Amino acid sequence: MEFGSDNVVGASAPIVEAIAVAARAGRQGTYGSDRWTQSAVRRLEDLFERKLSVLLMTTGTAANALSLATVTPPWGGVFCHDMAHINDEECGAPEFFTAGGKLIGVSGPGGKMTARALTETLARFPRGGTRHVHAATLSLSQATESGTAYACEEIGALVEVARSAGLSVHMDGARFANALVDLRCTPAEMTWKAGVDILSFGATKNGALACEAIIAFDPGKVEILEVQRKRAGHTLSKGRFLGAQMDAYLADDHWLDLARHANRMAKRLADGLTGIAGIRLPWSRQANEVFAVLPGDIDAALKQAGAHYYEWDALGLSADDVPRAGEVFVRFVCSFETLEQEVDDFIRIAGGAR
Amino acid sequence: MEFGSDNVVGASAPIVEAIAVAARAGRQGTYGSDRWTQSAVRRLEDLFERKLSVLLMTTGTAANALSLATVTPPWGGVFCHDMAHINDEECGAPEFFTAGGKLIGVSGPGGKMTARALTETLARFPRGGTRHVHAATLSLSQATESGTAYACEEIGALVEVARSAGLSVHMDGARFANALVDLRCTPAEMTWKAGVDILSFGATKNGALACEAIIAFDPGKVEILEVQRKRAGHTLSKGRFLGAQMDAYLADDHWLDLARHANRMAKRLADGLTGIAGIRLPWSRQANEVFAVLPGDIDAALKQAGAHYYEWDALGLSADDVPRAGEVFVRFVCSFETLEQEVDDFIRIAGGAR
Amino acid sequence: MEFGSDNVVGASAPIVEAIAVAARAGRQGTYGSDRWTQSAVRRLEDLFERKLSVLLMTTGTAANALSLATVTPPWGGVFCHDMAHINDEECGAPEFFTAGGKLIGVSGPGGKMTARALTETLARFPRGGTRHVHAATLSLSQATESGTAYACEEIGALVEVARSAGLSVHMDGARFANALVDLRCTPAEMTWKAGVDILSFGATKNGALACEAIIAFDPGKVEILEVQRKRAGHTLSKGRFLGAQMDAYLADDHWLDLARHANRMAKRLADGLTGIAGIRLPWSRQANEVFAVLPGDIDAALKQAGAHYYEWDALGLSADDVPRAGEVFVRFVCSFETLEQEVDDFIRIAGGAR
Amino acid sequence: MEFGSDNVVGASAPIVEAIAVAARAGRQGTYGSDRWTQSAVRRLEDLFERKLSVLLMTTGTAANALSLATVTPPWGGVFCHDMAHINDEECGAPEFFTAGGKLIGVSGPGGKMTARALTETLARFPRGGTRHVHAATLSLSQATESGTAYACEEIGALVEVARSAGLSVHMDGARFANALVDLRCTPAEMTWKAGVDILSFGATKNGALACEAIIAFDPGKVEILEVQRKRAGHTLSKGRFLGAQMDAYLADDHWLDLARHANRMAKRLADGLTGIAGIRLPWSRQANEVFAVLPGDIDAALKQAGAHYYEWDALGLSADDVPRAGEVFVRFVCSFETLEQEVDDFIRIAGGAR
Repeated sequence: MEFGSDNVVGASAPIVEAIAVAARAGRQGTYGSDRWTQSAVRRLEDLFERKLSVLLMTTGTAANALSLATVTPPWGGVFCHDMAHINDEECGAPEFFTAGGKLIGVSGPGGKMTARALTETLARFPRGGTRHVHAATLSLSQATESGTAYACEEIGALVEVARSAGLSVHMDGARFANALVDLRCTPAEMTWKAGVDILSFGATKNGALACEAIIAFDPGKVEILEVQRKRAGHTLSKGRFLGAQMDAYLADDHWLDLARHANRMAKRLADGLTGIAGIRLPWSRQANEVFAVLPGDIDAALKQAGAHYYEWDALGLSADDVPRAGEVFVRFVCSFETLEQEVDDFIRIAGGAR
Repeated sequence: MEFGSDNVVGASAPIVEAIAVAARAGRQGTYGSDRWTQSAVRRLEDLFERKLSVLLMTTGTAANALSLATVTPPWGGVFCHDMAHINDEECGAPEFFTAGGKLIGVSGPGGKMTARALTETLARFPRGGTRHVHAATLSLSQATESGTAYACEEIGALVEVARSAGLSVHMDGARFANALVDLRCTPAEMTWKAGVDILSFGATKNGALACEAIIAFDPGKVEILEVQRKRAGHTLSKGRFLGAQMDAYLADDHWLDLARHANRMAKRLADGLTGIAGIRLPWSRQANEVFAVLPGDIDAALKQAGAHYYEWDALGLSADDVPRAGEVFVRFVCSFETLEQEVDDFIRIAGGAR
Repeated sequence: MEFGSDNVVGASAPIVEAIAVAARAGRQGTYGSDRWTQSAVRRLEDLFERKLSVLLMTTGTAANALSLATVTPPWGGVFCHDMAHINDEECGAPEFFTAGGKLIGVSGPGGKMTARALTETLARFPRGGTRHVHAATLSLSQATESGTAYACEEIGALVEVARSAGLSVHMDGARFANALVDLRCTPAEMTWKAGVDILSFGATKNGALACEAIIAFDPGKVEILEVQRKRAGHTLSKGRFLGAQMDAYLADDHWLDLARHANRMAKRLADGLTGIAGIRLPWSRQANEVFAVLPGDIDAALKQAGAHYYEWDALGLSADDVPRAGEVFVRFVCSFETLEQEVDDFIRIAGGAR
Repeated sequence: MEFGSDNVVGASAPIVEAIAVAARAGRQGTYGSDRWTQSAVRRLEDLFERKLSVLLMTTGTAANALSLATVTPPWGGVFCHDMAHINDEECGAPEFFTAGGKLIGVSGPGGKMTARALTETLARFPRGGTRHVHAATLSLSQATESGTAYACEEIGALVEVARSAGLSVHMDGARFANALVDLRCTPAEMTWKAGVDILSFGATKNGALACEAIIAFDPGKVEILEVQRKRAGHTLSKGRFLGAQMDAYLADDHWLDLARHANRMAKRLADGLTGIAGIRLPWSRQANEVFAVLPGDIDAALKQAGAHYYEWDALGLSADDVPRAGEVFVRFVCSFETLEQEVDDFIRIAGGAR
């Protein structure tokens, strides 16, 4: 019963196969001039319905940090949710890549910032002075760190606030697929049609081995992205490794199938937990993560049975939801490899503990 | 007839197989806690005959830049050969990772700096003042960018100069295996026994898909390396991809077999070229690269026959060797996949052109 | 009636005279080897009762940022009050000098963080991992941005929390003198005896023209400070300009006289405002700044009469103190040149407005 | 007999007086909004015959580094003479301010790069790839570190090479006045009319206490300069200190008088030395510095008599000029305070030593 993370599993079969085929393919173009990378870029352009600047990377942290550096000067401020991955989990990578940019937390329940909170926070950074860093970038996570997702209209409303303050807009899509399949809007609608400038498009958590794309919706950004990638040591000479993954990920809607499975397992888990007395789910699940406040005895029974998951920071919970004595706040993550049986066993044990 | 680079080929069969096995192995430790990474570290410790701090990376540029950042403060100077890869081919990565360090070129024929040139260059950076950056690090390439290698005594002599000026010593071992098999000394003798502090140990050019190790010979450096790796976006969540490559690379002397083949092909090529009138080889080959001044007609005949190789910067050539009118200076690289037949065809065409 | 800032005035007469004398003194040592700088260092060592590493600077922002860079690695976190000057008013200078360090806000009323809030915030940054920046530095402002000051025991309690988490301790003493004369403890007690490692010792706001000292209590830090100062372009070739100011500032308790006057004017102002119906002072004044919630009619009357002061960010106010409709939250700053008459006129107008 | 540096002296009488007047002038605008700064900007605009973006700074290192950061991205290369102050004397400040930019040395006799050397060096940095840093900026020193100056046509020729490679052009004018008065062209001709984009305009070496201006010839650059200045801790709250110096420096051609005196003394010195057997002057003097190869006995006699000057790096000398056994290569600098008597005594002692 593995609900610790979506990165404890390996890669999906088609992606593994694609890596092996490419690695055995002898002499090929280097530094991203291979045919798999070229094919992956075309697939992304079809998917997003426009010309793009695409750069393949090995990690989400690098994709986020490099994306932010492209739209944020060293004296710029990046406005993101207090608990955003870029703010709280990337060890200062955005600060490194931007050469000293500053992340400004914006609050909101369930991992989603509100337009009002964004407006109020921006008001503390008036344009033109030199006391504060310059407000430069809005960064939204889709799905969020709390397993929720912004509706397209919510993205539009936040972008409107950002635009009126002159900000660029970045989206951290480490779990882009998981958000997309639940929202049932198009990739274009969730991004550039809503005003997003640059996107970290994740594949690693959803079945790849190590592959993410930076997608700038301005097709003229390739050169500026490439020089920064090289300088950060992220340009693979044998770029086929990245190209093969992304190409197989996108082929035949494989990426959507993987995400639908993970989300379905998360829904099954959330539904099961909802029916058990004493368990509270503070936010509605919208991707492949479920957050819950567990009574201590249920937590103990699950651990005893070998279930694996992590306690989580309760900082973002409302007063009603904050764990009381004897309770723990935990995160469950489902992946493309999560089995129905695992979920059902888990629910059964949790339900039987009382 | 492919002599353009050692990164236009894919990965060796055992390495591809190891990646596939690991990628299909379901739930495993993340961020380098997987069993392949652990095994690879043990193999490296056996090989180098001591406890190590090891960090796996995807690119040589990242391995070099992060290694340098570990031993060089932002106000530090790194002394390297004028034509070192870190100085001339990495797009400012060392400057980025060190937060503004400065690379100081040291001259010497055949890509190798001399102890005298190092001494003279260091003399311009006296300790204690604030006019100059502080002399911090010596970086040696083994093998060099010119296909030569330092003898262990040469490394020792350069380290002695560096130590007396208080410098740390880095070795860029992107082609470590190719240098090693020609020199017939041990990995320990070529590094820490000669005074090297930190090593970029390459595998990508010698048969891996994307894998290098940073090896600090002080076993207490892991934490400082890991925090910098994470911050640079180079920590793979599914670290098994790196572990599986390095583990298979080192198993059963696979890495040495690969290097021996490439070097043998280079030797065959160099020997063949030496016998052709009008071709000059400015330096003796010691790894898997051969540099030559070609008459224009030979160059034309080879290109006509489909041979692939690059012209090279003649900056480091002595006056005698500099290409004269109608000549070109070129680099040939052999890899683990170079075929005897390719070499022989190449020699035949070159020899027949006159 | 000038209460806008303590930097709208020039320099005190003895300091102006000292600059002029030094500037006319012909050939003198450069880069801080002049006799005034040497004398100033000796005076500081007498004052702090120990050997010091001292570096003179022209601005408080530079003194803070360079101090922080000396004790914080690029991947380090600096824990400071949410509204600290380094976090909110220095345009990202600490992030620049530390090459990407991260400032972490700690809350607390009246501009002072509490030991409990510091403990809780630090708990989110456990040692040893790579998700978060590494907790590196505690930065305290003395006096604070809210015109309050930490008692020596409060400093001791915060330092104890910091030390047990392995942090270094910085003090932003831009208004060190103003805090000191109200607390009636010694400079040593307020700093190194309480566990402070490095201090920005301000003079500019208290009568100098442009002069601050970085004081590291470890006397072996001069070289590392000097190289960073040079690299930041803050090493004056004619260092006498800084030495002359600091020397005159410290001679004959001039600095304490200046601070006592400014504080006395602030106390007179606070006492006067306290007696006026409708005005609330959220925090007790302990230095040369007074913060108040003013009814709109009083604000209008004062402005009408030519009084100069700034509205302030109400973010740090308790629910009781937050300005209600028609009220404004403002800051008044007194300086070494503030006149009793100004204060009395101001109180009279404020009192008469209702 | 002081010929060590032009920064061992204080400030000229009108400048000292201006500082004192401003410092005593009570309440004034802060952060550069004072009337002296405003007046200085107007004077500079008159002088350069156009609207400007002007920022006053305290040091030449900061002015250079911040100027370069304005026109050079972190992955950019700055092409400057091998022995340029920015490359050799500023402790990595340009690398710090540009967040990792790279300085590329260009050779040429007498401290002046040639158009041919610039062309050849630039050829090694072709546009569009990611192996090399991107060629971004040409930086010229006027006067040079060798006491020579570029003729306006020489500047134009170098700018033409730079422009065709897409570079911006910076001029390090730490000794701008000394070059100007010898060349007898206008400030506009020596800068923007010749294609210079941004200028470090020095005053400190020529009679100010600590004052330089960054002058961008694009009048729309003020905001980007100011935010970087603040973030580097170089924005003086009591900006009048800088304004008063620059205003007095420019008033009534004071700056030209100061430079003419220093140059006249240097000419007198050079003329005197030229007549002494055994002394070689490798370059023709064009500003306030004289470089000479001295026989050991003359050097000893001068030192014995109390003369002060420094040995210099012989790196840039032609084979004919390199000091032979028993000779030393030295630099003499004259300042606005150098006395005719000093020069004459010096010549007399040097001439009498043989």
